[in-house]
Amino acid sequence: MIGHAPNKLTCQCRAHLSFGCGPNMRFLPKLERKFRRWKKLKKPPLLRKLDTLFKSAHKGHRPEDSAKRVQKGNGKDVKNELSYKSREQFMYNGSFHEAVGSVLLTAQCFAMMPVRGVTAKHPSSLRFSWRYVRTCCCLLFMASMLINLSLTIYKVLHGSITFNSIRPLIFKSCIFLVCGKALSLARQWPELMMKWYQIEKDLPQYQTQFEKRRMAQTIRMVMLVGMMLSFAEHLLSIVSAINYAEFCSRTDDPIRNFFELTNDEIFYALNYSAPLALWGKLQNVYSTFIWNYMDILVMIVSIGLASKFRQLNDNLLRFKGLHMAAAYWSERRIQYRNICTLCSTMDDAISFITIISFSNNLYFICVQLLRSLNTMPSVAHTVYFYFSLFFLIGRTLAVSLYAASVHDESRRPLRYLRCVPKESWCPEAMRFAEEITSDMVALSGMKFFNLTRKLVLSVAGTIVTYELVLIQFHEDQDLWTCDQSTYS
Amino acid sequence: MIGHAPNKLTCQCRAHLSFGCGPNMRFLPKLERKFRRWKKLKKPPLLRKLDTLFKSAHKGHRPEDSAKRVQKGNGKDVKNELSYKSREQFMYNGSFHEAVGSVLLTAQCFAMMPVRGVTAKHPSSLRFSWRYVRTCCCLLFMASMLINLSLTIYKVLHGSITFNSIRPLIFKSCIFLVCGKALSLARQWPELMMKWYQIEKDLPQYQTQFEKRRMAQTIRMVMLVGMMLSFAEHLLSIVSAINYAEFCSRTDDPIRNFFELTNDEIFYALNYSAPLALWGKLQNVYSTFIWNYMDILVMIVSIGLASKFRQLNDNLLRFKGLHMAAAYWSERRIQYRNICTLCSTMDDAISFITIISFSNNLYFICVQLLRSLNTMPSVAHTVYFYFSLFFLIGRTLAVSLYAASVHDESRRPLRYLRCVPKESWCPEAMRFAEEITSDMVALSGMKFFNLTRKLVLSVAGTIVTYELVLIQFHEDQDLWTCDQSTYS
Amino acid sequence: MIGHAPNKLTCQCRAHLSFGCGPNMRFLPKLERKFRRWKKLKKPPLLRKLDTLFKSAHKGHRPEDSAKRVQKGNGKDVKNELSYKSREQFMYNGSFHEAVGSVLLTAQCFAMMPVRGVTAKHPSSLRFSWRYVRTCCCLLFMASMLINLSLTIYKVLHGSITFNSIRPLIFKSCIFLVCGKALSLARQWPELMMKWYQIEKDLPQYQTQFEKRRMAQTIRMVMLVGMMLSFAEHLLSIVSAINYAEFCSRTDDPIRNFFELTNDEIFYALNYSAPLALWGKLQNVYSTFIWNYMDILVMIVSIGLASKFRQLNDNLLRFKGLHMAAAYWSERRIQYRNICTLCSTMDDAISFITIISFSNNLYFICVQLLRSLNTMPSVAHTVYFYFSLFFLIGRTLAVSLYAASVHDESRRPLRYLRCVPKESWCPEAMRFAEEITSDMVALSGMKFFNLTRKLVLSVAGTIVTYELVLIQFHEDQDLWTCDQSTYS
Amino acid sequence: MIGHAPNKLTCQCRAHLSFGCGPNMRFLPKLERKFRRWKKLKKPPLLRKLDTLFKSAHKGHRPEDSAKRVQKGNGKDVKNELSYKSREQFMYNGSFHEAVGSVLLTAQCFAMMPVRGVTAKHPSSLRFSWRYVRTCCCLLFMASMLINLSLTIYKVLHGSITFNSIRPLIFKSCIFLVCGKALSLARQWPELMMKWYQIEKDLPQYQTQFEKRRMAQTIRMVMLVGMMLSFAEHLLSIVSAINYAEFCSRTDDPIRNFFELTNDEIFYALNYSAPLALWGKLQNVYSTFIWNYMDILVMIVSIGLASKFRQLNDNLLRFKGLHMAAAYWSERRIQYRNICTLCSTMDDAISFITIISFSNNLYFICVQLLRSLNTMPSVAHTVYFYFSLFFLIGRTLAVSLYAASVHDESRRPLRYLRCVPKESWCPEAMRFAEEITSDMVALSGMKFFNLTRKLVLSVAGTIVTYELVLIQFHEDQDLWTCDQSTYS
Repeated sequence: MIGHAPNKLTCQCRAHLSFGCGPNMRFLPKLERKFRRWKKLKKPPLLRKLDTLFKSAHKGHRPEDSAKRVQKGNGKDVKNELSYKSREQFMYNGSFHEAVGSVLLTAQCFAMMPVRGVTAKHPSSLRFSWRYVRTCCCLLFMASMLINLSLTIYKVLHGSITFNSIRPLIFKSCIFLVCGKALSLARQWPELMMKWYQIEKDLPQYQTQFEKRRMAQTIRMVMLVGMMLSFAEHLLSIVSAINYAEFCSRTDDPIRNFFELTNDEIFYALNYSAPLALWGKLQNVYSTFIWNYMDILVMIVSIGLASKFRQLNDNLLRFKGLHMAAAYWSERRIQYRNICTLCSTMDDAISFITIISFSNNLYFICVQLLRSLNTMPSVAHTVYFYFSLFFLIGRTLAVSLYAASVHDESRRPLRYLRCVPKESWCPEAMRFAEEITSDMVALSGMKFFNLTRKLVLSVAGTIVTYELVLIQFHEDQDLWTCDQSTYS
Repeated sequence: MIGHAPNKLTCQCRAHLSFGCGPNMRFLPKLERKFRRWKKLKKPPLLRKLDTLFKSAHKGHRPEDSAKRVQKGNGKDVKNELSYKSREQFMYNGSFHEAVGSVLLTAQCFAMMPVRGVTAKHPSSLRFSWRYVRTCCCLLFMASMLINLSLTIYKVLHGSITFNSIRPLIFKSCIFLVCGKALSLARQWPELMMKWYQIEKDLPQYQTQFEKRRMAQTIRMVMLVGMMLSFAEHLLSIVSAINYAEFCSRTDDPIRNFFELTNDEIFYALNYSAPLALWGKLQNVYSTFIWNYMDILVMIVSIGLASKFRQLNDNLLRFKGLHMAAAYWSERRIQYRNICTLCSTMDDAISFITIISFSNNLYFICVQLLRSLNTMPSVAHTVYFYFSLFFLIGRTLAVSLYAASVHDESRRPLRYLRCVPKESWCPEAMRFAEEITSDMVALSGMKFFNLTRKLVLSVAGTIVTYELVLIQFHEDQDLWTCDQSTYS
Repeated sequence: MIGHAPNKLTCQCRAHLSFGCGPNMRFLPKLERKFRRWKKLKKPPLLRKLDTLFKSAHKGHRPEDSAKRVQKGNGKDVKNELSYKSREQFMYNGSFHEAVGSVLLTAQCFAMMPVRGVTAKHPSSLRFSWRYVRTCCCLLFMASMLINLSLTIYKVLHGSITFNSIRPLIFKSCIFLVCGKALSLARQWPELMMKWYQIEKDLPQYQTQFEKRRMAQTIRMVMLVGMMLSFAEHLLSIVSAINYAEFCSRTDDPIRNFFELTNDEIFYALNYSAPLALWGKLQNVYSTFIWNYMDILVMIVSIGLASKFRQLNDNLLRFKGLHMAAAYWSERRIQYRNICTLCSTMDDAISFITIISFSNNLYFICVQLLRSLNTMPSVAHTVYFYFSLFFLIGRTLAVSLYAASVHDESRRPLRYLRCVPKESWCPEAMRFAEEITSDMVALSGMKFFNLTRKLVLSVAGTIVTYELVLIQFHEDQDLWTCDQSTYS
Repeated sequence: MIGHAPNKLTCQCRAHLSFGCGPNMRFLPKLERKFRRWKKLKKPPLLRKLDTLFKSAHKGHRPEDSAKRVQKGNGKDVKNELSYKSREQFMYNGSFHEAVGSVLLTAQCFAMMPVRGVTAKHPSSLRFSWRYVRTCCCLLFMASMLINLSLTIYKVLHGSITFNSIRPLIFKSCIFLVCGKALSLARQWPELMMKWYQIEKDLPQYQTQFEKRRMAQTIRMVMLVGMMLSFAEHLLSIVSAINYAEFCSRTDDPIRNFFELTNDEIFYALNYSAPLALWGKLQNVYSTFIWNYMDILVMIVSIGLASKFRQLNDNLLRFKGLHMAAAYWSERRIQYRNICTLCSTMDDAISFITIISFSNNLYFICVQLLRSLNTMPSVAHTVYFYFSLFFLIGRTLAVSLYAASVHDESRRPLRYLRCVPKESWCPEAMRFAEEITSDMVALSGMKFFNLTRKLVLSVAGTIVTYELVLIQFHEDQDLWTCDQSTYS
């Protein structure tokens, strides 16, 4: 029957709230949330108390009320302001610059992103100069990398070129390219962070201290887990190499055997010497870090952008289904537009690293899957190999899903716009909705492909297809023999 | 009469009505309709009479008339109300909860979806607890499944790993994962059903008893046909296994031969004993049921969602091309939005099962097609094999088409909106049309792919491509030999 | 400088007119146009004179003028009306029903589309009944086809099943399915033609006699060229078969040799006899016709639908860039909507035939390309083979392009809507534009894929991929040997 | 000042300006820009001074000021106008006709695009006639090409037909087809250039002399670099052929050996003679030029169209975020529409060449990659081969990226429309935005595929897939043997 009053018909959309803000079936964010819940319980009691206080103060207040309160109430807020100032030292302001500080500091230990002031409170302290020590270190490493790369090319050209044998070449070229790009990114970094800062300033403010910490915690967790797994993989690779070096001992010196195996590209051209071996090992360690860091960098930027969209979405969610003024929508639209512009700027800045990271992962997954058909010479090998393979697949999946979350979050405001009641449906809301539906907001691989969830499936399909064809050229005895090392 | 023709040029869209509501060339729905028509004739005379009465009472009434009647007429409706109360016991209310009651009950017999109150009239009676007997049964089965899975892994790792030999491993892992997910779905079920209930309550009401029954009948038919075919397949598999066990008799005991063949993963690690054999058989039966049930579950949810969209569409169809008020469109839009939200919630709840079901079917079709190249040892094998293959393909197609029907139905309102006359084209109608064109409403495989009709073709293309490549590795003598059993 | 008046800035869109109405680089339509231009010169002088007269009468008249004239001028139009009546007998009314009359008549000679009244002036004369002689003939042929199909299945199952050997089976199954579907289409035909008639009545009228003839001429040309090429191919196949039968003569009777070769599926199971041979030959001829006719049917329906869109587009083109009233856009939008509905109805009616036609062509192109690697035994074979291959590819391309033209024409109004001046941009024009951009109007293969120009490329890509893989299984001696006939 | 901030919340979009107008990560345009910056420094001092003068004159002027100035100020502009007239001789007007003059002139030296007046100031001087000497030369070359093609077909048919052996056939057919199409393009050229002229006239004018020169410089640079690389490749091919001819010397005459090798299709059918050898060589040189020119033509047209869009975008960028009148948007929309129409007209004119160019490149990359597996007989070969391969890949990439830039530029206005403040958001701006989002403006390969950045990836994917399959048929000894020449 069409007769009954429309106001009886409540929008069921609101019921959605109870399911939490992310029923997107996002693996990793889910894990994060669990992790965070566990951390929450461990939160220092002072902070927890502050949050509870803050929340109880706001509970029940309509947005207009709080707006009024802010306008009229000076006396009331004085106390808050005072306490805010004293809390300032140990509190987050929720900015991206602050969140990535420690991550960039770690990167600088491995000769990447040489920019000064990463741990400062304000992005205006960021500086880049060619004369800083860290910049010189970075250039030094790149020069050393170039020598190593030349030695690798020399070795590869003297053997037969197959899909598998060019592995070290591709590995080292990617490292070198990423290093170069990271240097150029470091030059842009102060400017980029200022953009972030200006856009963050205008966004709807976080409600609780916990919300402010969220992004920083996620970024640190990703960095930590990534680094730890990478470290574990490197340790396993050393164990496996020692094992292998012992088995195929060329000389009587086990240390020499080990280094000749792991740095075969050096000792193919030059004679063995301890300094060279050390240099090779250092190079190895740095390369492994950078190889992981390029994926982590993409993830971190994605987390940052997605969290900015989420900040906006949280505000929209709070006023979902309510009667809002046109000015509200206009303001949100401009904020949304600013984040989109930021997203596009960041994409321009890192999309070279993104495409390197994706093609690199794609190639290595294909090679490793192909190598998985071989018989492993020892248990250490088997453990290392499968750990490495699953780490690789997991990392690729994590990059894809975190990067896709930017696109997912950018589409989210549409849900809230769909629930705008008829009375408050204004041209600005319509314009907002139209912009979201027609724009493609996502990180990309140099605009050749967009990073969305659909990409994961097509990458997986490509891997399966290539793998099925590549299997035909596979010969078992080709790998894991003593006369040919296969360490990356 | 509201439906005045705006000018001489009448919209031919109306002529479309005569073709029936689904000229979508949908195979299965078509079959259903035929089946239903046949059932209609067999409808008990009492019900038929009631429907005729109801229909004749409404014939000729314009919607406003009936609206007026509802407002003013108390005396007239008393009789109807009374008779309604007495009819209540044996009549459907057309809710999804009611329709899936028996389906869930069947599932509970096979240790899935342990939730209480599935056959109750109202979804508020649904309860889940870890202490219910059915939940414990479910956990017990999962533990037993885990043991079986471990034995299977043990056996697979001791043989050579090929595309074909990992079949039991994949089969059992999928069963285990689906069981786990079904348990978590059972926990959400009471809440989900309440959502359904609230949304259904607000939708335009069904006109006849027959319409109310439709969804429930379709769901039951799907369940029945699915189960019967699955049962037939299982019987054939037993016949074929007996045949095979006789041919490759290892011991003198035919029963032992049979069990050693069908539960080779158990007796590879352990010695033969009757209780173990029985356990294995039970496990087999349950696995086969769950393997079919995961597809059926996806179909049933799809049917439910599609039928809710159809309920809305039927109302739109009734007023197609007529001059309707803006409030009408506003109301329909909110109802549409509610169903979309429901669709997205259900998708979040079952999309893990969907992706398992699709990848599982894709893998098994590839394997079975590959095995179809073998020479079959006996007629029983041939019959079983081809029955199983066509059942598998048919089931996959049915899942795809039913799931795609959600998307198809969600696009249908656009047809009616296109025929809105110029005079009644209002912002709310425009907003409705824009939302439909820009949103993607469909079930998905964890957002990696959407379930639409286009998917069917791309899945078919993928199967053909993979098949053509896989054929190259096929060796005829590899399968159907006595020393390697190939029963799932 | 932004200062100058906007009216100085003339829309260059109009300049586009001079390029003719189809710069879409459409191969076949281009050929048609050339053919038509040549025919135009050969037009009987009477008709040419009438057209010139009509055109000169309308030249220079603004649309408003002619609208006024129609309203006020009764006396002036009397003459026109009179002459119209007398011309009626030998003139086209430009309806689809009239255009396909002879095509359907031809089909009926080959036991397809048994519907009465196809050559009548008005579609209301169309009748279908199960008791008509033509319906019985059709059923008889289908029964005969079924027997032939069974014999083919019998033969195929007794040999080895390969990608190439199932060719006759696929060929005959397709023929049988298409025959059945054509019968069901014949039942719907009277209703479908009435729909066409009602929609055509409301469309903007043709200006000249030549425009009215255009669609009918295109349809006949397609039918004629298709049939002639098919006839030529059949003749070549006979020549080649005679050649081959002589080479591999099994018996002394050359006629018997020929029939045993071309109808090997019959004489594999049964003994040779002249009546059987004749039956087989007849079956052959009919099958070849139907095999071509299914493609032609899709083409003809596509031409019909595209020409209805073009009729609308021609009207829009005439008023392009002019200031039109809102009522004009409203009317055009409804007309457009009606054609879209017609398109969707026709798609439902023929999409089964479309999908059969496409998959059939795809399979046969793959098989023939594969067979092209064989060495041909004689020149007759070579000529027949390559003629057949290019005919097949050409026909597939023609079906694709004609079907895609429906989609292309349905997008065309957008061009004219883009040139609507600012002053006459009204909600109805906006709604029209939005509907065109958001709807997908095209013929489809049971909604699994849409027939657009993009499809051609993906089909070509699929053929190349499959071909590259299939080549690996190709063995030269397998085909063209005396013990295995390979005639379809 | 119009550009008042609507509220406290300033649109961060403006900050984007500082990043330059193309942060699209476009490789080649980037190179161009660097090249241009370098050229800028080398700019003749007079021109530099003029530009500085012009810029300083405009600095600080708001658009309305300048608009006013134009309306009122006659006396002030007199000087400018006078100086303009005197500068006219050595200055660009920035038209496409002017920019491609020298490029077409070069083409005419190689018997392509025979149209008179390509270096004239105004496109109305362009003439095409069948009786011009250049047209006759073109026809003569085509006749000669046809003979050469026949000889090639003769040779190919007498050998075994493989993926590799049909290379000269495909090469020469493409050249012949492109020649024919270029002739037909030459006929349309005067009309096309008039269209360009009319549209360019209405576009927002360039601000500086430098901007006017930009397109012409880019076009010339592309032509120059393309021709130089092509020349280098041809020289290398001669060196490599001499080397090869010496190694496989058939006769004592080294010159004869060389010609018999490079023109083997001629001397396969005919006896050796010096005039024939010269004819063959000439044919070779011309073919090589045309082979490169077809790619260059597509690039040049793309650069032209993209630069017209950029001209519009530069104007939009200048007024980004400011409060503009509805008339401004209306005017820009019409200008945008005109460029779109031009783009579609040019696409119709050159899309045949585009599709030939793409399929040709795709085929040759596949063949060359396949041949890269062979062992090279000499260093000259290796150098030539890899130079040729990388040139081919680079050229294909360049064509793709330049063609894609048309699409990218056509989407750019959307960015500026997103920053229109709330107050000046009018129906015309909305219509503009809607048209951009819903239209697909790009060059295409006969509408079968659109040339966008996404295409690059799918082409790359196709090449890898085909390559992986083709490798299986590769036999090393097949190529680079003395009895079979493999020069294109």
